[in-house]
Amino acid sequence: MRVLGVDPGLTRCGVGVVEGVAGRPLTMVGVGVVRTPADAELGHRLVEIERGIERWLDEYRPERLAVERVFSQHNVRTVMGTAQASAVAMLCAARRGIPVALHTPSEVKAAVTGSGRADKAQVGAMVTRLLRLDAPPKPADAADALALAICHIWRAPAQNRLQQAVAAHRTLKGRTA
Amino acid sequence: MRVLGVDPGLTRCGVGVVEGVAGRPLTMVGVGVVRTPADAELGHRLVEIERGIERWLDEYRPERLAVERVFSQHNVRTVMGTAQASAVAMLCAARRGIPVALHTPSEVKAAVTGSGRADKAQVGAMVTRLLRLDAPPKPADAADALALAICHIWRAPAQNRLQQAVAAHRTLKGRTA
Repeated sequence: MRVLGVDPGLTRCGVGVVEGVAGRPLTMVGVGVVRTPADAELGHRLVEIERGIERWLDEYRPERLAVERVFSQHNVRTVMGTAQASAVAMLCAARRGIPVALHTPSEVKAAVTGSGRADKAQVGAMVTRLLRLDAPPKPADAADALALAICHIWRAPAQNRLQQAVAAHRTLKGRTA
Repeated sequence: MRVLGVDPGLTRCGVGVVEGVAGRPLTMVGVGVVRTPADAELGHRLVEIERGIERWLDEYRPERLAVERVFSQHNVRTVMGTAQASAVAMLCAARRGIPVALHTPSEVKAAVTGSGRADKAQVGAMVTRLLRLDAPPKPADAADALALAICHIWRAPAQNRLQQAVAAHRTLKGRTA
């Protein structure tokens, strides 16, 4: 399975492509950042993010997109930008029929470090180890995007079982209704 | 000036087209709602919103897009959906080179009712009066979209003066730097 992880943001959108299956060593296929100028108009920034994500989808043809699930935290302004950038990434994938999965920051941290409260450095260190890289990918957004992709590959079997259970339950409900 | 107002939302995206200039009676050109099913996947919902907005841009060819500026309020889940839907609307407009303007809910209320704390019914009543309609547009999201377009037409002269002042200041700074 090839997954494009996206750590959304208006100024820096981390992107990372990881290939592999749960329980086997994973491979980094690509990593980078889509940037937009902070002083550009919001509409233009969203167009730039769309172009950037489209380039990554064109070049790496991922089978899945994994995006950070955005919560409203302390900095409202940042959260809005994050929600907007993530919307553009999800839109680009869904238009191509690529399934989109959302993972919370603590799910991602727990998946790669074992602790949902790990810090940036710990996540970077584990991403470096798990993908057998020479050094932690920079900036942190790029490392976070890779962590998202790793998290998705590892959580996918459990998520599929859940979805199948929900679908089976719905079918059952439909039959008994 | 022809303005497409968008009251963003994942379940209901209000859309309304108003034509006119500040200080003259305004005309409603079109009004409606772009809906997406609440049980669909987020990516698919964003694609549906994109298709809906594109249809409105194709049919009405507005010169400006006016969108509600989203703030983080009480209901975090709703706010995220609103931010994501607004991102798609802004992206669609910016891709076509249509300038995007953001107005806060209180700016919109103040523009059409005189009070930034007016309720939905008051906004609906004033939109009906200002556009000389027989009844308030329903649902409320559609009326809010028209209110956004009206607000933009009325605020545009002031905004343009502001932008010109900022541009002049930047040019001046560039010269003296």
